Amino acid sequence: MTRTVLESASKTVTIGFDEPFCVIGERINPTGRKKLAAELEAGDYSTVEMDALAQVACGAAVLDINAGVVYNSNPNPNETEPPLMRAVIELVQGLVDVPLCIDSSVPAALEAGLAAANGRPLVNSVTGEEDRLELVLPLIKKYNVPVVAISNDDTGISEDPDVRFEVAKKIVQRAADFGIPAHDIVVDPLVMPIGAMATAGHQVFALVRRLREELGVNTTCGASNISFGLPNRHGVNAAFLPMAIASGMTSAIMNPLRQPEMEAVKAANLLMNNDANGGEWIRFARVVEAIKDGATFEEAAKASAAAGTGRGGRRRRR
Amino acid sequence: MTRTVLESASKTVTIGFDEPFCVIGERINPTGRKKLAAELEAGDYSTVEMDALAQVACGAAVLDINAGVVYNSNPNPNETEPPLMRAVIELVQGLVDVPLCIDSSVPAALEAGLAAANGRPLVNSVTGEEDRLELVLPLIKKYNVPVVAISNDDTGISEDPDVRFEVAKKIVQRAADFGIPAHDIVVDPLVMPIGAMATAGHQVFALVRRLREELGVNTTCGASNISFGLPNRHGVNAAFLPMAIASGMTSAIMNPLRQPEMEAVKAANLLMNNDANGGEWIRFARVVEAIKDGATFEEAAKASAAAGTGRGGRRRRR
Repeated sequence: MTRTVLESASKTVTIGFDEPFCVIGERINPTGRKKLAAELEAGDYSTVEMDALAQVACGAAVLDINAGVVYNSNPNPNETEPPLMRAVIELVQGLVDVPLCIDSSVPAALEAGLAAANGRPLVNSVTGEEDRLELVLPLIKKYNVPVVAISNDDTGISEDPDVRFEVAKKIVQRAADFGIPAHDIVVDPLVMPIGAMATAGHQVFALVRRLREELGVNTTCGASNISFGLPNRHGVNAAFLPMAIASGMTSAIMNPLRQPEMEAVKAANLLMNNDANGGEWIRFARVVEAIKDGATFEEAAKASAAAGTGRGGRRRRR
Repeated sequence: MTRTVLESASKTVTIGFDEPFCVIGERINPTGRKKLAAELEAGDYSTVEMDALAQVACGAAVLDINAGVVYNSNPNPNETEPPLMRAVIELVQGLVDVPLCIDSSVPAALEAGLAAANGRPLVNSVTGEEDRLELVLPLIKKYNVPVVAISNDDTGISEDPDVRFEVAKKIVQRAADFGIPAHDIVVDPLVMPIGAMATAGHQVFALVRRLREELGVNTTCGASNISFGLPNRHGVNAAFLPMAIASGMTSAIMNPLRQPEMEAVKAANLLMNNDANGGEWIRFARVVEAIKDGATFEEAAKASAAAGTGRGGRRRRR
């Protein structure tokens, strides 16, 4: 069984075929969040703090940390991103105990993050592009950490899933040349918007199955891409995640503050027999009850998290 | 490609691997509905009328018709069920134009239903029990209709999915002996409650895939069984259906009046590329909008159905 082991200072999270689906919280990322970007440039970390606490309370097992701000005062990310990455990681590690996912396209920022992170973080990401392989894989080997491998290469993102499979295979092989085992590669097969490509769902489900059966790797994706441009996006995402999980996907980078998606993941864990005695589902059902009584998902999840999980389950019928 | 063709007087519904998931409305069934049973014995069909109209408006492609009332005045279903089956079918056919699923364990009621039903109804069901095979398969052949085959036999319901597969295979073979093709057999692999059997999800997903790949048959199930005894059942069902669909399930007998389940099915159709241009999803998203504005699902679905589907899609982002 393929197991990708992540660690914080005090906690181990395993991504694996027989493990609960690993929710990697995507919120700490200034891309497309102008307010957050401006705050970070000004040295204001209040949104990062809130996002860290809320995401973990809502069920994120890992937090993605992206410090890719283009400062107005300095447009060179090679200078600005590494110290910001370090600062955000140190802050988040002081607040929550989950493992981190260090997310950058700037190698110096990845290295700064790897130096700052406790335990065994996940690195996000390497691609099949030659320069990325040569820059990132040595870092992965040096720090002995797992890495997200995105299935595009120097020719771009292929619409042909067979090509994307071959790119993933190439990355796994190149990693092996560096002494990095397949269980430390988490492949992102790339999820296209279903509104733009009607076969996008089929492609992902088939690719995930193949990646698991033929390469033996864990998989991840940016889950919300699937619904880009569609109405009622959460409804699409909330069906996509169980379908991907039934096809073998083992993690996703997603927004854990959204109830429909998190409810779908919790139910899928139960249905995949990765929720012993249904304890997590029963706990989540109480959160849903609190929402019906007027709480927001975040409020209800925080109250549930604060109350602890060790009290056993009282089953309710409806 | 396996296609199971159902017909009403004016409408064809195809169950198939490349067709939208076929929702068979389960509501017209007095089992466990004391009020409905009492009404039917008294000759009051008002609930049946409401259930027929509401289920079709909410998206049922087929309506299951079960007339299994045990009358207080006459406890012999062989006498009471056939005329009631005929009466209910004639009533429902006068109200809605979808194909029907004739649901009975009383052969005389099946035959009464088959004589009364327009077009090509589905028969629910035959099992692998010897007496059922001998009673039901000749009727299926005589009327040239498709049948639901439930994977239990004279030894009962096996907890071993391999045994349930073999029962299904036996039914398909016995049907072939009668000249009934595999594409007219819709196998129900039997869904166990996940709360009682932790592997129930895995079993169904694996069985559906095998039934499809090895026997080439369409599949169905009583979808809500999966969540029996659990809290927040709709949340479990709404993840189970997309997972079953991703595994190849092509229909379910279910309650179409429940929004979470129907939303999950509509999203799964989109993700399986069985919703051309997302037209059905866009229409459903408008129903969801109307619910947010205060309508019930049934009200919003009826308004949407009344407005027709031919107006094209206005896409909304959120």
